[in-house]
Amino acid sequence: MEKTDMEVKKEEEEGAPAPSVERVFDGVRVPAWREQVTVRALVVSLGLSVMLSVIVMKLNLTTGIIPSLNVASGLLGFFFVKVWTKALERAGVLRVPFTRQENTVIQTCVVAAYGLAFSGGYGTYLFGMSSKIAVQATEANDSQNIKDPKLGWMIAFMFVVSFVGLFSLVPLRKIMIIDYKLIYPSGTATAYLINGFHTPQGENLAKKQVRTLGKFFSFSFLWGFFQWFYKSGDDCGFEAFPTLGLKAYENKFNFDFSAMYVGVGMICPHIVNASLLIGAILSWGIMWPLINNQKGNWYSADLPPNSLHGLQGYRVFIAVSIILGDGLYNFLKVLTKTVQAFVSDSQKIRLSTLPVSDEVQMAKPPIVSYDDDRRIEVFLKDQIPKWVAIGGYSIVSLVSIITLPHIFPPLKWYFILVAYAVAPVLAFCNAYGCGLTDWNMASTYGKLAIFVFGAWAGAHHGGVLAGLASCGVMMSIVATASDLMQDFKTGYLTLSSPRSMFVSQVIGTSMGCVVAPCVFWLFYKAFDDIGVPGSQYPAPYAIIYRNMAILGVDGFSSLPKHCLTLCYVFFALAILINLARDLSPKKVGQCIPIPMAMAIPFYIGAAFAIDMFIGTVILFVWQKMDRAKAAAFGPAVASGLICGDGIWSLPQAVLALAQVKPPICMKFLSRKMNDRVDAFINSAS
Amino acid sequence: MEKTDMEVKKEEEEGAPAPSVERVFDGVRVPAWREQVTVRALVVSLGLSVMLSVIVMKLNLTTGIIPSLNVASGLLGFFFVKVWTKALERAGVLRVPFTRQENTVIQTCVVAAYGLAFSGGYGTYLFGMSSKIAVQATEANDSQNIKDPKLGWMIAFMFVVSFVGLFSLVPLRKIMIIDYKLIYPSGTATAYLINGFHTPQGENLAKKQVRTLGKFFSFSFLWGFFQWFYKSGDDCGFEAFPTLGLKAYENKFNFDFSAMYVGVGMICPHIVNASLLIGAILSWGIMWPLINNQKGNWYSADLPPNSLHGLQGYRVFIAVSIILGDGLYNFLKVLTKTVQAFVSDSQKIRLSTLPVSDEVQMAKPPIVSYDDDRRIEVFLKDQIPKWVAIGGYSIVSLVSIITLPHIFPPLKWYFILVAYAVAPVLAFCNAYGCGLTDWNMASTYGKLAIFVFGAWAGAHHGGVLAGLASCGVMMSIVATASDLMQDFKTGYLTLSSPRSMFVSQVIGTSMGCVVAPCVFWLFYKAFDDIGVPGSQYPAPYAIIYRNMAILGVDGFSSLPKHCLTLCYVFFALAILINLARDLSPKKVGQCIPIPMAMAIPFYIGAAFAIDMFIGTVILFVWQKMDRAKAAAFGPAVASGLICGDGIWSLPQAVLALAQVKPPICMKFLSRKMNDRVDAFINSAS
Repeated sequence: MEKTDMEVKKEEEEGAPAPSVERVFDGVRVPAWREQVTVRALVVSLGLSVMLSVIVMKLNLTTGIIPSLNVASGLLGFFFVKVWTKALERAGVLRVPFTRQENTVIQTCVVAAYGLAFSGGYGTYLFGMSSKIAVQATEANDSQNIKDPKLGWMIAFMFVVSFVGLFSLVPLRKIMIIDYKLIYPSGTATAYLINGFHTPQGENLAKKQVRTLGKFFSFSFLWGFFQWFYKSGDDCGFEAFPTLGLKAYENKFNFDFSAMYVGVGMICPHIVNASLLIGAILSWGIMWPLINNQKGNWYSADLPPNSLHGLQGYRVFIAVSIILGDGLYNFLKVLTKTVQAFVSDSQKIRLSTLPVSDEVQMAKPPIVSYDDDRRIEVFLKDQIPKWVAIGGYSIVSLVSIITLPHIFPPLKWYFILVAYAVAPVLAFCNAYGCGLTDWNMASTYGKLAIFVFGAWAGAHHGGVLAGLASCGVMMSIVATASDLMQDFKTGYLTLSSPRSMFVSQVIGTSMGCVVAPCVFWLFYKAFDDIGVPGSQYPAPYAIIYRNMAILGVDGFSSLPKHCLTLCYVFFALAILINLARDLSPKKVGQCIPIPMAMAIPFYIGAAFAIDMFIGTVILFVWQKMDRAKAAAFGPAVASGLICGDGIWSLPQAVLALAQVKPPICMKFLSRKMNDRVDAFINSAS
Repeated sequence: MEKTDMEVKKEEEEGAPAPSVERVFDGVRVPAWREQVTVRALVVSLGLSVMLSVIVMKLNLTTGIIPSLNVASGLLGFFFVKVWTKALERAGVLRVPFTRQENTVIQTCVVAAYGLAFSGGYGTYLFGMSSKIAVQATEANDSQNIKDPKLGWMIAFMFVVSFVGLFSLVPLRKIMIIDYKLIYPSGTATAYLINGFHTPQGENLAKKQVRTLGKFFSFSFLWGFFQWFYKSGDDCGFEAFPTLGLKAYENKFNFDFSAMYVGVGMICPHIVNASLLIGAILSWGIMWPLINNQKGNWYSADLPPNSLHGLQGYRVFIAVSIILGDGLYNFLKVLTKTVQAFVSDSQKIRLSTLPVSDEVQMAKPPIVSYDDDRRIEVFLKDQIPKWVAIGGYSIVSLVSIITLPHIFPPLKWYFILVAYAVAPVLAFCNAYGCGLTDWNMASTYGKLAIFVFGAWAGAHHGGVLAGLASCGVMMSIVATASDLMQDFKTGYLTLSSPRSMFVSQVIGTSMGCVVAPCVFWLFYKAFDDIGVPGSQYPAPYAIIYRNMAILGVDGFSSLPKHCLTLCYVFFALAILINLARDLSPKKVGQCIPIPMAMAIPFYIGAAFAIDMFIGTVILFVWQKMDRAKAAAFGPAVASGLICGDGIWSLPQAVLALAQVKPPICMKFLSRKMNDRVDAFINSAS
């Protein structure tokens, strides 16, 4: 059915939430799931996976700072297959046209594969086990706590830990995507991008949306490029812009001109952004300065700034407590409802009647739109049988429990059993938080595992190695779980079958399990000075993770004073706030902040919360000024901002690999310090 | 006549240049010129003049950097009279409503008055004559070359030099405003602001334009405010942003984020902006670096960077040569045409048939619009009789020639005669250049006078004092002439009578002649350490001007090598380019750059040319995308940008006076220098 501009306009005026995306695609057939996973898609995926793995691996080993390349993989996938199909079309041998579902499959497969180059810990926990890193630490430098890299065990390790995450959350996809309506900003933005690429010709509004997306995409990309020139060192560039003053910047309060997070803020619901800001003010504005005043009293004053024994300890563990509290609450709620539904035999009870699900919506009326209808229909058509999820999870767990202690002797089988028992909860927490705020907190869960299992094993039973290994287990599970859910969101919005998503994740993960260790092995064998401080490949985070593990074996006693008490308090608070949200009248409840979102800035800093809040304010003002236009073009603007910055990560990574450093430092000094620096510069020249 | 939206839209589609402003005011009576100059307007003007004079004087004596407060005076005038009339209205005793013409009168009067606080040279030439400054120089420290400030002679001096500029250009106002259609960006912007304030209620498009103006006004104001925080020292802040790289910044090539000049670029015709950029590239991109290579060869290598003996000499004198060449050409052309018209007795020949007048238009078709018709009608209604101009000029000149040698004995009567013979040409040059580019180059003409008359008097006959005094004569003439013409433009666009403009300028100048010396006298008597380096009131430019005069007495021989030759070449080039513009076919001619515009960046630097070029590019793209909308809203956007930044000057000046300095320095360092500075900071803390 063709739709004229007039009709669209009328709908807008009648207050319909947004013009339909799926109507535009009405003439386009949705291919069956087997047709979505094509051979050419897998070939392109493999090529891209290798490329991105090399990039990520090199960044792992040089700076340790890894940008998200998810958007890049979607775009590159489109580009390569498009070139391929164009070539075939010209040659007259094209049989299957390139669909958006196929594009999504590539994106999913590549993200699953290259993601392992990060979550495999080649720059963190896994390399931290090696003797090269161990000699740099003062303690635990014994054979019991050392495991040098070998290609064989690394691939085996990857295979046994990387699939657990996939199976653990698959059954919850309907709850996360359809009932909770979680946003997954990056996934949504990628879907917009892919939908934009594949929009059928001739649609007026869709064309305008794609043009808007393109405009903001270019802006965001160029802005990222421009910013790059001024960041030649730490505390340089726009990230260090003390927009709210130097004092605020010291407490990480600044607007850092990140187009990406402004875009994320525009996609996330207002309440999430407000929660983030409240959390930022509570933590970086109030709590951390207060705790910092107790320096020398609650914890030693001469610790390095990022030591978990000091202020950083409060940050990490309080954040984790809140996340766990909120996650556990929601997990139990979902469980209860599911069991109830099961018991009452009325499996048709829509979980969308849960209060929480409405609050997370983007201020939409609860009526289901044409888009939602269509998407839900496709999303629910191709089921992934429960027995696949449960069976897969059981088998992989069993294999892990048997295999892992052979690889890491200090890691006892019951550690792994416990880990796999709680893993789904943590995976749920991470996927839920990521859906709300776009932050993947996998490494935080990994750090938690280092502490818990390291302490359990104890210093004299290879606790350091056990801690690092369990960190790997935990990180892999929670990272892949949130990636999978992010991809399900993209799939949902592009009418891709969940089954093809899942299959492509499985294939991608298998690729990654081989590609990532091989790439690492290449670097490891090719460069002698890998892991040596000051060399070309210092792998800075490897020693940091090992040091954490060394601290961790001392258990809770190594935490700074009152930290554990505060953790209990905030854990309880998270549950109480959730109860308040659910039990109070809906009007009040939806104005109570979400603890999960509040917790993220506790650990990450306040800047991104300010970026996102600005995004939400922009959208809010826009909605007040022209509701219909904001609904039609808001997501396009936001997606453009997110994707442009996301794609810029790729050339930025390439520049970093080629050792091209930015030429200029934009520095911010107090007037007093500036006078001294000017004197220094004059005397030097 | 009321005009519906429909009609406006139709006109737009038919390619009419812009919706009419004056139609909006059709129902509003234009008051007679005597009604425009009201008592309340003069009272408010006096108050504002004193306030702004104090601000300018203090800045004169502290940093020496004076922002333009013209827009501020328009806005403050509106504000005060509005409060006044509102109060009277409430009391029920308001007889005369506040009109836009009255607003323009206030603006004109205040600009004329406070302008003298700058052009009176209290921070430059006039104070440079004093013994306090003379003792700081190594030469010419004798009684012959010293003249200490006294209230009496200062007021007398002001009165004899300040009115010449007014009379000298009044007869040319029709040529400048109507025939040449010069833009005078600040004057145009102020007119938009004033028209906006006084727009009758209920006009849809006008309301939208005012809202656009308000939006960009706020943005520009807040942007100026934001920038302020990061400029705690030289080479700090957005002005020092090496947008095109550090190397380009060293040669003054950078986009400095000045909202004002982007706005000016949007108002100026494309060819002016292009000429500016070409001039910037020619001078700062090619010539200055080449001449700099001859350092130590063409001129001594150990001169201070701003010495007129060195590179700065080339910059100033070559720029002046081009400006004089262009100005002289146009002056002679106008003269020829006027004489021709006079001779052929057909005084009705419209000078608009001159080729140059078309090129300066904003790409408008030569058809006269309703607005132009209406404005020309009003502008030509109230004539200022020629005998007033000629008589006034003769009388004031005569008085000057008699009086000035008594005040400054080295300044012979024939110097003054010569100065007054060439002054109208220079005043024309300055008013013409200012109309094209918004730059008032009065101080440059003053410097020229220092050189010419200082050398003429010679070192042994009080040449330094003669140079400084003639600088004052010249600066006053050319500065007031361009201010007057700027105000005529504002008056033209607000349907104010030229006669009321002229009267209010005369009154304002009289005010300034008393207010400015008194304010200076107050500072001079109140603070002992005025003019002492390192004190609270160092008056940095006073010693610079005196030093220029000391160099000047050596005449042309003091110029660096080849400078004079280059000046001749560029003087000739300016005339040749003008000839080429006029003689070549119109299509070609209008693409040839304007020498006057090319010369400005020679001296000022390239940054503002880049700002303005960006403005022109924005307008160009906008015109390509939506010509009607660009025509309707372009001037509003540009005026908002100019006025917002202009008003910000006021609080900025107040902050400077209160000695509140910006807290942060945004500094730009090369990566190498940054590493060294980081090391220094770490070692220091």
